[in-house]
Amino acid sequence: MREVRVGLVGAGWMGKAHAVAYKNVPLVFGPEPAVPKLELIADVDPERAQAAAEALGFARWSGDWREVARDPAIDLVDICAPNDAHPGVALAALEAGKAVYCEKPLANSAAETRRMAEVAEGAITLVGFNYLKNPAQGYARELIRAGELGEITLFRGTFDQDFMSNPDVPFSWRHDKRLAGSGALGDMASHTLSFSQYLVGEIAEVCGLWETFIRERKVAAGGSGHTAQAGAGAAMRRVENDDVVQCLIRYQSGAIGTIGALVFTQERMNELLLYRHTEPPGERGYKTIYIGPEHPGYGAFHPIPGIGLGYNDQKIIEAREIVAAVAEGRPAEPDFAFGHEVTRAIDAVLRSIEERRWVQLDEI
Amino acid sequence: MREVRVGLVGAGWMGKAHAVAYKNVPLVFGPEPAVPKLELIADVDPERAQAAAEALGFARWSGDWREVARDPAIDLVDICAPNDAHPGVALAALEAGKAVYCEKPLANSAAETRRMAEVAEGAITLVGFNYLKNPAQGYARELIRAGELGEITLFRGTFDQDFMSNPDVPFSWRHDKRLAGSGALGDMASHTLSFSQYLVGEIAEVCGLWETFIRERKVAAGGSGHTAQAGAGAAMRRVENDDVVQCLIRYQSGAIGTIGALVFTQERMNELLLYRHTEPPGERGYKTIYIGPEHPGYGAFHPIPGIGLGYNDQKIIEAREIVAAVAEGRPAEPDFAFGHEVTRAIDAVLRSIEERRWVQLDEI
Amino acid sequence: MREVRVGLVGAGWMGKAHAVAYKNVPLVFGPEPAVPKLELIADVDPERAQAAAEALGFARWSGDWREVARDPAIDLVDICAPNDAHPGVALAALEAGKAVYCEKPLANSAAETRRMAEVAEGAITLVGFNYLKNPAQGYARELIRAGELGEITLFRGTFDQDFMSNPDVPFSWRHDKRLAGSGALGDMASHTLSFSQYLVGEIAEVCGLWETFIRERKVAAGGSGHTAQAGAGAAMRRVENDDVVQCLIRYQSGAIGTIGALVFTQERMNELLLYRHTEPPGERGYKTIYIGPEHPGYGAFHPIPGIGLGYNDQKIIEAREIVAAVAEGRPAEPDFAFGHEVTRAIDAVLRSIEERRWVQLDEI
Amino acid sequence: MREVRVGLVGAGWMGKAHAVAYKNVPLVFGPEPAVPKLELIADVDPERAQAAAEALGFARWSGDWREVARDPAIDLVDICAPNDAHPGVALAALEAGKAVYCEKPLANSAAETRRMAEVAEGAITLVGFNYLKNPAQGYARELIRAGELGEITLFRGTFDQDFMSNPDVPFSWRHDKRLAGSGALGDMASHTLSFSQYLVGEIAEVCGLWETFIRERKVAAGGSGHTAQAGAGAAMRRVENDDVVQCLIRYQSGAIGTIGALVFTQERMNELLLYRHTEPPGERGYKTIYIGPEHPGYGAFHPIPGIGLGYNDQKIIEAREIVAAVAEGRPAEPDFAFGHEVTRAIDAVLRSIEERRWVQLDEI
Repeated sequence: MREVRVGLVGAGWMGKAHAVAYKNVPLVFGPEPAVPKLELIADVDPERAQAAAEALGFARWSGDWREVARDPAIDLVDICAPNDAHPGVALAALEAGKAVYCEKPLANSAAETRRMAEVAEGAITLVGFNYLKNPAQGYARELIRAGELGEITLFRGTFDQDFMSNPDVPFSWRHDKRLAGSGALGDMASHTLSFSQYLVGEIAEVCGLWETFIRERKVAAGGSGHTAQAGAGAAMRRVENDDVVQCLIRYQSGAIGTIGALVFTQERMNELLLYRHTEPPGERGYKTIYIGPEHPGYGAFHPIPGIGLGYNDQKIIEAREIVAAVAEGRPAEPDFAFGHEVTRAIDAVLRSIEERRWVQLDEI
Repeated sequence: MREVRVGLVGAGWMGKAHAVAYKNVPLVFGPEPAVPKLELIADVDPERAQAAAEALGFARWSGDWREVARDPAIDLVDICAPNDAHPGVALAALEAGKAVYCEKPLANSAAETRRMAEVAEGAITLVGFNYLKNPAQGYARELIRAGELGEITLFRGTFDQDFMSNPDVPFSWRHDKRLAGSGALGDMASHTLSFSQYLVGEIAEVCGLWETFIRERKVAAGGSGHTAQAGAGAAMRRVENDDVVQCLIRYQSGAIGTIGALVFTQERMNELLLYRHTEPPGERGYKTIYIGPEHPGYGAFHPIPGIGLGYNDQKIIEAREIVAAVAEGRPAEPDFAFGHEVTRAIDAVLRSIEERRWVQLDEI
Repeated sequence: MREVRVGLVGAGWMGKAHAVAYKNVPLVFGPEPAVPKLELIADVDPERAQAAAEALGFARWSGDWREVARDPAIDLVDICAPNDAHPGVALAALEAGKAVYCEKPLANSAAETRRMAEVAEGAITLVGFNYLKNPAQGYARELIRAGELGEITLFRGTFDQDFMSNPDVPFSWRHDKRLAGSGALGDMASHTLSFSQYLVGEIAEVCGLWETFIRERKVAAGGSGHTAQAGAGAAMRRVENDDVVQCLIRYQSGAIGTIGALVFTQERMNELLLYRHTEPPGERGYKTIYIGPEHPGYGAFHPIPGIGLGYNDQKIIEAREIVAAVAEGRPAEPDFAFGHEVTRAIDAVLRSIEERRWVQLDEI
Repeated sequence: MREVRVGLVGAGWMGKAHAVAYKNVPLVFGPEPAVPKLELIADVDPERAQAAAEALGFARWSGDWREVARDPAIDLVDICAPNDAHPGVALAALEAGKAVYCEKPLANSAAETRRMAEVAEGAITLVGFNYLKNPAQGYARELIRAGELGEITLFRGTFDQDFMSNPDVPFSWRHDKRLAGSGALGDMASHTLSFSQYLVGEIAEVCGLWETFIRERKVAAGGSGHTAQAGAGAAMRRVENDDVVQCLIRYQSGAIGTIGALVFTQERMNELLLYRHTEPPGERGYKTIYIGPEHPGYGAFHPIPGIGLGYNDQKIIEAREIVAAVAEGRPAEPDFAFGHEVTRAIDAVLRSIEERRWVQLDEI
């Protein structure tokens, strides 16, 4: 049994989620082609690193991510640090010859992701667009690539997340342009953009629109996590990022004719709706398919369809992808090049909003 | 252009609905093979008969239903009188050689419906199970009869109607055993039974269970229609009929193997869900089909699918069925023989509840 | 009983639908405040006018719409002629002092609708945006106007209609820029725009995108209705209008805070989904409300909720609105001024597509 | 940090699922009040026990379940052996003073479960009705117990599982009356019965109906798991158990008045539909609630609602329940007494089918 030795940077909520996923990989998928070994965890807060190492079962801990990047006993560097720290850790790890698994977004600007994608050429990388790891998405892409739906003429995606819609939710790093890059655009729309790029292909041009409805928020005394609360007399701080973003997209493919359609809703993540124009008149309609062993990744969990995967199971499939890729010396997917394409699209939307015009992806 | 001369008995809510349906038949379906002519309307309340004749456009009115049954200028007798009056009117009309269109239930007991079905042999009759006239139902039966779903092994039907679930709704004829026969059983379950008999076929035996949760109700000062209300000091009267009924059914067909399934929900009356086991693994699921011109009766309304029929449109299709049958001298469907089968099933459920045992349909 | 004397222009599919609706108005709503009288029908094809008069029960017919506009025995001119004929008929009727009920779109350009709205000032007019007459829409607006949903911060609408997605559907007036103005934009998106303007209010600016996927179509030998078909050797003609259109919209309201949300799908036209942020945590969610007597217009059809209205019932509610408005000498809704706003929005989208930029409504 | 030392009997699919769940308990819920320790695994096949010990991380393994029951280093005996082995293992473990976590069904007959429930009195036990551990179910019971839905007047449950509907699926222990007790009744309906007993309470009497549609099946050469297949010339064996079962149930509560309703569908296991009659007229309907931190057990997984739990997450919540109960010396739920009630209901249904009559629970 081979081992893939993991060094994890960032001991917060997402770091824990990755650790849990690694632990489940051999339980769900078995020991082949390799088993992840939780070797080293780093966090800027050394106490948090130590506590996480104990709780999650890492062999060692550190207060400095550089130790992870340069440690010869590490095969795979996993980056769960804040977004603005992604480029530094990833470039150091790549230069040290490691495989790199980085949470989304790959970075806050296309300038950075371009550099990361260039350095990553030939290396094994993975960006954590975990929704793409839903067997329903894998199956959707299979259908599209096999031409089962004809050429794709229309993609329509929305991502509604209301945890910020309450004006009493305090200011957090998500509202700080320097730390987060953008608001709903980078955090939510990036998922939708990644879906479209995964399923439809390259974007030619975009035109965007955004709004910040809650223009200032209270500053919480303590942290700014999902459960943070600010008192009545708290100071206010101006929100720098967007609450809502919309954009028009023209794809590079210029297609004609449609013979099918797909609908997917993450809240019903075990269902894929499929429409085939090729069915006889009077019997056309959206078919609700429950994901099952025939769809990529599901079979390791349950032998029959309809049992139901959850969010965490997507993460297990994702972690398995990078572990297997490292063990087999093959590319993982979606890699840094894909992550760069998503960030290019985000930057194009940003520019189109600032300059109130259509922006070509080639400009970015 | 031929005319079918209609005599209508009962000028209440359902009488009006039938009249509206007749008026729409030529507008929706055109003048062939015949146009209904609203000739005569009767009601025990002559003033109501007169008012309805004026509002709905009947040529004549009467306070006595016998005039309708014996009038030589009437081709079709339409019975919208209270349930307990159905047998008397229907038998008189049949004996006078008329075609008869009777609202459901055909009568309150199988003893009566047996006699009615016997007398109706060779005559043109129709029972107003209007839900069966939904194009979705017609299509469902086509699929089943063509063997597209294999042998039917399971039928599961429910009819939830909550307008009686409020204890403040006053006592009405529906709660009076003599007038209504039964409560939810005859009023609601009869629809579900008729679906199963229409789609699956003959019933072999039943076992039932019922409950009256609201055991007494206030007596309203005026009428007892859907909008009646009783004052605070109103007298109470014991409810004689059931609020909820359930039953097990064994059908005469003893089938093996299933290759499909259907789901229909009246609240989404324009959708039929179809499941085919013959589809490839990984692509099986319920398909949501919107009814359209390919399904029986829809095409007269709209040239493309998904536009949407309503309850009243079912009634138009039903009225057209009897008008066309009279004009063409052919049987209409579902006829009195079918109506008798539904009442037999109801009586069997009743007896199984009273005697707390399985009851064979052959006993009724 | 008062009468409203109707003169109808255009004896095609929509003319028939209006006539059917008028006939149902007194049947459903009763004779107050007035009953429509089908007085005169005109069509460019006099034989079609005569046949329609007989089939639908008009007292007189004509081959010239001008007779309708100037006939002193007409109270209400109803325009179901092709789109490009709307301005001529409407202006003549308005100048003759008639009330006018015009099918949507009011006209093919904002230049025309501006003139029509100006002339219509003080007159009784109605534009046939029949989807707005669904009780679900009336209720949605009530909720919004009562502040039950807070300020509206986001409107997202789509209209998917696939009857043109088959490349074998032949060329029709819908593909001719001169006759139809635009394709999906004027025909489908106009409904969505009208929803947003009805529910959210005035548009500030738009930016659009469109595509014609099927760039040429066969020319059918006969007509070009929904059932037209072209033979194998038919000549091809270039499609001038759009198959798909999308646009971004910024509304004039600049609101903050949301406390509710609505979802409506025409294919499930009897359901309105309502979300209230004011409900307790752990019990928030979209509630599926079946329309019923509490919602505007439904009560005339059925005494209890969930029975189900169809497309034609919307048209009956719409016809009743104009008949009652004429009888009571009050404005109808939505009127020509509203119809002009919709066409302005369409023209703004058109210009934004042609000039590849954001367009202010004030420019139109 | 306290440990709860687990001895697991049965190294098959469900044994693996339990082991995975234990491993996730501290990762999801943290180390308090105790962490499960995988101490010993037993299987009749010693090689399978050894392989599972290595793959799943048990400290020791055995070919004899008796070692687990009597090992002083074991706090909790977890029974994932075949159904007919449950009583022997459970009784031995209880007599040795262990806490016991037994997969459903508790046993194949009420005679056995009665004895097990008696011996379990005062001990800590849990039966693996994992669907009851869905936060949606916990919340449903909270609502019902708080009287938010009034008295419960109607429970309607179905469990459709089609993996046996294919006649080519070979004979397995599920079709053998001695091994499985019954077919759909014990395997599927037991879940539905347990829902009703969990939510509604004690059953007074039942009347059942069943059918075996596929009366013989091929005997597979190898095993008979979910993926087994039999060749063309395989021998046939008669199916002894039911494919479909239905039953009527009368509950002991005799309630009046309903003010709410719930709908739950396992295939959409993250949604609970709630209907409150107390809402204003015109705004009543089923509300789709996505489970979230306010619902029992969800908060340990995700900080915001709508992220989505899967089947395995239910098992983690279940394993956590027994681990915490052992650590805190408190009863777990649902315990053996509840498991006995479910089996009593199953036996009552069985007898009612055999004797074609209503059967009181008191008879069992």
